[in-house]
Amino acid sequence: MIKKVLENTKEKKPIVHCITNYVTVNDCANILLATGSSPIMADDALEVEDITSICSALLINIGTLNERTVESMILAGKKSNMLGHPVILDPVGAGASEFRNKTALRLINEINFSAIRGNISEINFIAKGISNTKGVDADILDAVNEQNLEATVEFAKKFSTKTGAIIAITGEKDIVASQDKAFVISNGKSLMAKVTGTGCMLSAVMAAYIGANKKTILEAAAVSVAAMGLCGELAFKKLEEIDGGTSTYRMLIIDFMSKMNLELLEGGAKIETR
Amino acid sequence: MIKKVLENTKEKKPIVHCITNYVTVNDCANILLATGSSPIMADDALEVEDITSICSALLINIGTLNERTVESMILAGKKSNMLGHPVILDPVGAGASEFRNKTALRLINEINFSAIRGNISEINFIAKGISNTKGVDADILDAVNEQNLEATVEFAKKFSTKTGAIIAITGEKDIVASQDKAFVISNGKSLMAKVTGTGCMLSAVMAAYIGANKKTILEAAAVSVAAMGLCGELAFKKLEEIDGGTSTYRMLIIDFMSKMNLELLEGGAKIETR
Amino acid sequence: MIKKVLENTKEKKPIVHCITNYVTVNDCANILLATGSSPIMADDALEVEDITSICSALLINIGTLNERTVESMILAGKKSNMLGHPVILDPVGAGASEFRNKTALRLINEINFSAIRGNISEINFIAKGISNTKGVDADILDAVNEQNLEATVEFAKKFSTKTGAIIAITGEKDIVASQDKAFVISNGKSLMAKVTGTGCMLSAVMAAYIGANKKTILEAAAVSVAAMGLCGELAFKKLEEIDGGTSTYRMLIIDFMSKMNLELLEGGAKIETR
Repeated sequence: MIKKVLENTKEKKPIVHCITNYVTVNDCANILLATGSSPIMADDALEVEDITSICSALLINIGTLNERTVESMILAGKKSNMLGHPVILDPVGAGASEFRNKTALRLINEINFSAIRGNISEINFIAKGISNTKGVDADILDAVNEQNLEATVEFAKKFSTKTGAIIAITGEKDIVASQDKAFVISNGKSLMAKVTGTGCMLSAVMAAYIGANKKTILEAAAVSVAAMGLCGELAFKKLEEIDGGTSTYRMLIIDFMSKMNLELLEGGAKIETR
Repeated sequence: MIKKVLENTKEKKPIVHCITNYVTVNDCANILLATGSSPIMADDALEVEDITSICSALLINIGTLNERTVESMILAGKKSNMLGHPVILDPVGAGASEFRNKTALRLINEINFSAIRGNISEINFIAKGISNTKGVDADILDAVNEQNLEATVEFAKKFSTKTGAIIAITGEKDIVASQDKAFVISNGKSLMAKVTGTGCMLSAVMAAYIGANKKTILEAAAVSVAAMGLCGELAFKKLEEIDGGTSTYRMLIIDFMSKMNLELLEGGAKIETR
Repeated sequence: MIKKVLENTKEKKPIVHCITNYVTVNDCANILLATGSSPIMADDALEVEDITSICSALLINIGTLNERTVESMILAGKKSNMLGHPVILDPVGAGASEFRNKTALRLINEINFSAIRGNISEINFIAKGISNTKGVDADILDAVNEQNLEATVEFAKKFSTKTGAIIAITGEKDIVASQDKAFVISNGKSLMAKVTGTGCMLSAVMAAYIGANKKTILEAAAVSVAAMGLCGELAFKKLEEIDGGTSTYRMLIIDFMSKMNLELLEGGAKIETR
């Protein structure tokens, strides 16, 4: 499955339309280029339908949403749905404000998402309307661990059934689930949480992989999670060798995405089926 | 004082709400993570009160202000005041346009700031309504040097008395003053001016340190200035060893914030009381 | 010509007002600082005329345009024209949406540009109203190569005659043309396309060089193209030595701009007159 996902991405070079936050937008653009795909960022209602039409996938990230861009997200999402393009949601900080909550729920109601990726606090909120979200990081109370892994997999499958979207819950262990199948991925390093945007970047990579693998969305999403986590691991190894800090780590993570290939990923991916 | 400020920050891990410019926002987020605190960027009027309520401090940076976000700054600032959260102002480019000037003065009138940090041109403008501001960098005419240091310290103390805020004037020598006490800090490297956002990043770090040290705001502000300057020095030393340019310097500055600890800071801080 | 352009830039330290996209804005600011000039980003209608008045050049980049900032572009452009400041246009993604197209054409109609820089797809669109633009990258059908180089030079000269602006078409071979003279520049590396914003950064450097060389705009533009390309080459060489990826490449490109000097540029520039 890794082979096909990677090959399709390199070959089809999907253009990914991103309506995303201004905090990590540059990193998202660079990591998309690193995967061999192309980014286009456009968020005005006057052009998002045109832009999304020439793309292979749409990523909606609500990290720094505002009234103007929410309308653009809705327009672009509906247009993408009409065209059969995959749409990926990153509900950054869902649970942290009434506006963010309403927007996340409105997006899920009005748009059919191919995949939704967030931390457990964000996914908890949009699935259940409750959460321990504190800011943009997952709350400790929500942590996915060995004890609650099975239960969280079941929860993800149910939420996938309800929304029709692949559900990706990322944290120490990552879960990627469809209605009836799930992958648990154990790649990644905790230091990734000290770099802003590793979640956003993963969502961007996921959009690219899905854009190039429309018939195997679950697998594409799982492979993207493993690839990003593996970049975190490879970057961590190099970081220790050169005794770098968190900003060097950010650079190395993107570097390794640009070096990612079949050999590295098949050798390093830790993907289990549940 | 250094010990307590650092320990509180590492332990309390304050969440800092940033309403800031889109030029340096990624660096601000990454340097906040490097201090052990967490950033959340949110600038829409519909959510800033909710967001600021779950945070420990609010940073308002007017670097790329617009009519929409100015209202958000006012709303968030008033809410933070009501909740007793510290609010930090970075009046980027005050003096450079009528809109920026009016906004800076309006913010100071309507919000009680815990600290205001800028270069001497910016602080001159908001204190006196006059300035030699040319763009976003301090004018040479305004430079703080040995000759006018005492006078500038007095000016900072008076402006602190007037506003109730700790006043931090940063440049070759940095001054951090309350009504009746001031610190002069001599850390830093002139090359820091060749990296965009070193001022913005310092304001973010200051917000984090103050957010974790609400009872010793003057000390927290002074320590943040020393820490940022020391990162500039340590990064400069490494930069020379590897013969890097200004973009590597930017990365190393953030790297060293992620490595900052009591030993480094107590060994390197150059803080005098005036 | 290289000597004069570089010396003027280092000496005059122009302030460049950028109304630009939020994807690459930080890189644009940092590369401007690396040239010895200063950036100021401001995009609100309430202040762009004030801001542009204290600057030496204005850069308009439509990468993430919206209704609000388009009005700011028009206001700032007209003010700059009135003051005799050079105005540079980077029509990012022209051809990709109706809104982008109309905006690009409106800007060209209402503002006198000193220089317009884009890839061949973008320039084709704004010159002819047709293009193969796919997103923000030049289409393969539009590639400038040895076969169509002469024809493209003629096209650039004609478009320069029509607009009064220096036309810079960048790609594998770069063309910088006035009405009756053109330079073909062969610096650069194809890997630069894997870093977001190398085009935006070049436009920023071009604005700085032109801002400091108002009487020799064609030469300033050509030298900026060679300098940026040479940074790409020098960075590529170092990248291979250290086996880095695309994010390291981005950093090294800006690093080399901060190290650029007469010796390097005279030694490395590949500029031919046509």
